[in-house]
Amino acid sequence: MTLSIPEMAANARLAANQLQMVTSEQKSQVLQKIRDVLEANKEEIFAANARDLELAKAEVEKGKLSASLYKRLDIKGDNEEKFQTLLQGVSDVDRLEDPIGKVTRATELDNGLDLYRVTAPVGVILVIFEARPEVVVNISCLSIKSGNAAILKGGKEAFHTLSVLTKVMQSALDQVSHTIPFPRNAIQLVSSREHISELLDQDRYIDLVIPRGSNSLVRHIQNNTRIPVMGHADGICSVFLDADADPAKAPGIVVDAKTNYPAACNAAETLLIDRALLNGGSQDTLSLTLKALFDAGVVLHVDPPTLDFIHQHHASAQEGTQYLPSKPEDYDTEFLDHTMAVAVVDGVDGAITHINTHGSKHTDCIVTETPAHAERFMSMVDAAGVFCNASTRFADGFRYGFGTEIGVSTNKTHARGPVGLEGLTIYKYRLYGHGQKAGSYGVGEGKQQFSHRDIPLEAVKDKFAK
Amino acid sequence: MTLSIPEMAANARLAANQLQMVTSEQKSQVLQKIRDVLEANKEEIFAANARDLELAKAEVEKGKLSASLYKRLDIKGDNEEKFQTLLQGVSDVDRLEDPIGKVTRATELDNGLDLYRVTAPVGVILVIFEARPEVVVNISCLSIKSGNAAILKGGKEAFHTLSVLTKVMQSALDQVSHTIPFPRNAIQLVSSREHISELLDQDRYIDLVIPRGSNSLVRHIQNNTRIPVMGHADGICSVFLDADADPAKAPGIVVDAKTNYPAACNAAETLLIDRALLNGGSQDTLSLTLKALFDAGVVLHVDPPTLDFIHQHHASAQEGTQYLPSKPEDYDTEFLDHTMAVAVVDGVDGAITHINTHGSKHTDCIVTETPAHAERFMSMVDAAGVFCNASTRFADGFRYGFGTEIGVSTNKTHARGPVGLEGLTIYKYRLYGHGQKAGSYGVGEGKQQFSHRDIPLEAVKDKFAK
Repeated sequence: MTLSIPEMAANARLAANQLQMVTSEQKSQVLQKIRDVLEANKEEIFAANARDLELAKAEVEKGKLSASLYKRLDIKGDNEEKFQTLLQGVSDVDRLEDPIGKVTRATELDNGLDLYRVTAPVGVILVIFEARPEVVVNISCLSIKSGNAAILKGGKEAFHTLSVLTKVMQSALDQVSHTIPFPRNAIQLVSSREHISELLDQDRYIDLVIPRGSNSLVRHIQNNTRIPVMGHADGICSVFLDADADPAKAPGIVVDAKTNYPAACNAAETLLIDRALLNGGSQDTLSLTLKALFDAGVVLHVDPPTLDFIHQHHASAQEGTQYLPSKPEDYDTEFLDHTMAVAVVDGVDGAITHINTHGSKHTDCIVTETPAHAERFMSMVDAAGVFCNASTRFADGFRYGFGTEIGVSTNKTHARGPVGLEGLTIYKYRLYGHGQKAGSYGVGEGKQQFSHRDIPLEAVKDKFAK
Repeated sequence: MTLSIPEMAANARLAANQLQMVTSEQKSQVLQKIRDVLEANKEEIFAANARDLELAKAEVEKGKLSASLYKRLDIKGDNEEKFQTLLQGVSDVDRLEDPIGKVTRATELDNGLDLYRVTAPVGVILVIFEARPEVVVNISCLSIKSGNAAILKGGKEAFHTLSVLTKVMQSALDQVSHTIPFPRNAIQLVSSREHISELLDQDRYIDLVIPRGSNSLVRHIQNNTRIPVMGHADGICSVFLDADADPAKAPGIVVDAKTNYPAACNAAETLLIDRALLNGGSQDTLSLTLKALFDAGVVLHVDPPTLDFIHQHHASAQEGTQYLPSKPEDYDTEFLDHTMAVAVVDGVDGAITHINTHGSKHTDCIVTETPAHAERFMSMVDAAGVFCNASTRFADGFRYGFGTEIGVSTNKTHARGPVGLEGLTIYKYRLYGHGQKAGSYGVGEGKQQFSHRDIPLEAVKDKFAK
């Protein structure tokens, strides 16, 4: 029996309601069971994956699929290394602190009238992702840990792998259901691409959409749903070399930010240069940085002042292959390869204006030895991450120490930057009284007054933990 | 010179960037100046308000405007009481703790590589409100305190009052601008209703929309913008009388929740009754509650079992004027007056199912003496507020002790329930390094490891306060 999309969404909502009563211990048991069942069924998973890989290979040969996408489709890896990492990921999520049921604010409104703000799951999340099939396991585990119900829509290239992975995880939920009231519909998979638009209409049931994929996928989703979307389309990150950037730090930071993994959203796309650096010689910050970029095989799209500087100090660099004049649209482009746009700006304020105009509010870096410049840049650049003397590539949930990452958000509300489990939570207010009426409080004779006394969090923070 | 809407929005964005450098002390000076200038210009404000009241009076006489809307338009009040309250509100906001620049998470990623999560303004907020002109002052002060730029769109009935209030506040900003770098465009007013749709298109510049007005206004905005909307359309709150509800508490809670201010979003619209209470006699919980509602002039729309109970125990109540059979749509209706839908449900789980189906995720109450029932209800009801033995009318920013209220949100992300200043904030990550490269970290020989050591918040929480 195939369910309609509204039926699936309604089932997810029911599952989300049931998940509110599941305890930390039960969630842990479910995650351990998922790991065990995945491991016990690995041959079936590998067989399905082999089928996807075979179909994808034909597409690669026809030139319809890139070799890197093909590689990301593989779930087994050499010596099952990728699969072992996937299993380890389940245990890693299990070990994270339970984000639900934490008291984050507590106030005695009056004698015997106590208010608690308690973390709660968002509810039903829709995750739309491309390529890597192991995401379905990762997101399912994060949803379970945070008490959310998830509807998962993966890429068609991974159809067989995703189907088996989901079936196996649901069988784990079935197995625990004898002892734990854990809803099977906490995880549901949608396979067909034509269902996306119908899913995006289910704002009655779905609370949050998390797109993980190409810019065009994310932008399409942002433009076609009333449901809040958490994610990012572009990642146009900049590194600004301030007048007194340390020449021993600047080249390393810029080269790492650009080349450590150019396809990542936190790779730098733009190099901004304080005009004062143009006066430097061939042993100075700018020359050393440009040389390091040339040596790393980066092609620079440069503005006229930088072009002059290169002609003067890097006569051996090849125009056309190592550098070329930039076009205006280069400063709004996410190159995602060994290409970088370069512009000269007037000091920190010039850099701030450039970034706030062209950037994507993801992560931007200043290289400086002047704390006041760092402070101004980091306050006024409107981005999820503002870095001083560190590569933009550090903008990542694992590097930030979140233990896991749901995605990176360039939103201005709810969650921003690399998002850990906390991004899948909200809160509810619990008020405990003894029959109090609001009409008894106020100004005038016989009226009661609120005490609004803070209740120390230390004493109550786990009062509602399950 | 009249600016276009995109120009205004771009100016707000520039102002928002400039606001990032304003200190707590400077914000306080601005708020004090606004209070002083409002007071100094009160006659001009009253004159403009008198003009609006005169025009509105004609509309009331033509039956085009309600008497209550007319009353809310008045900004002066008896003995200038309402105006003094408005001025006091400015000082009250000034005295709130600055929500910006607080470190909420701090981690040493490695030696000399420190990450801080620091609260920051959302950026540019658009507030669309109806009727009460003093909202423009209140919202402007909250925006200033939280470092946001605000674009304000008020109702046309208050046109003259809003124009003068905004002009006066902007002149206060001009006066401080000699000593404080405070952007005049931190507050901008839009008067014309036809600009709303163009404003809702400015997602490039505007980060958050806050609608304060009728359900239809809120729903229109939710359906017509890509910008996140914080607010609520319906407020369908329920009170559930559990089998062992205390008969000394139930009538008071229900009557207060319904009648204390029926036009408010936190007023109860639905009374749910545990089926077991139908067995009670005329001195029991259900009878006492129904009698109290009849005595308070509430008209009940009841389901068949309640109808039978009323016939049996309240023979003197008048069918048709005091109670009548309910229709299905009554349970999805926000009556906003002395009307209440009543339904019998099967225990706590029946109440949870009813509320999660018909409620608006605002505030719902259980009246019970059984903690396990309260726990189940409060965990599983999906609402911003879940109350035990207290009136739903307590769901309010002032009563919660927030000092002020921006609005009530039934969203599932960002901010939920009554929203104080915190709802106008987000955070950014600041990373301070010494030239670290991401490529230096990882698995393998010579690679560095992250330490991910928590930095105690107590020591750093005001490190970035201005």
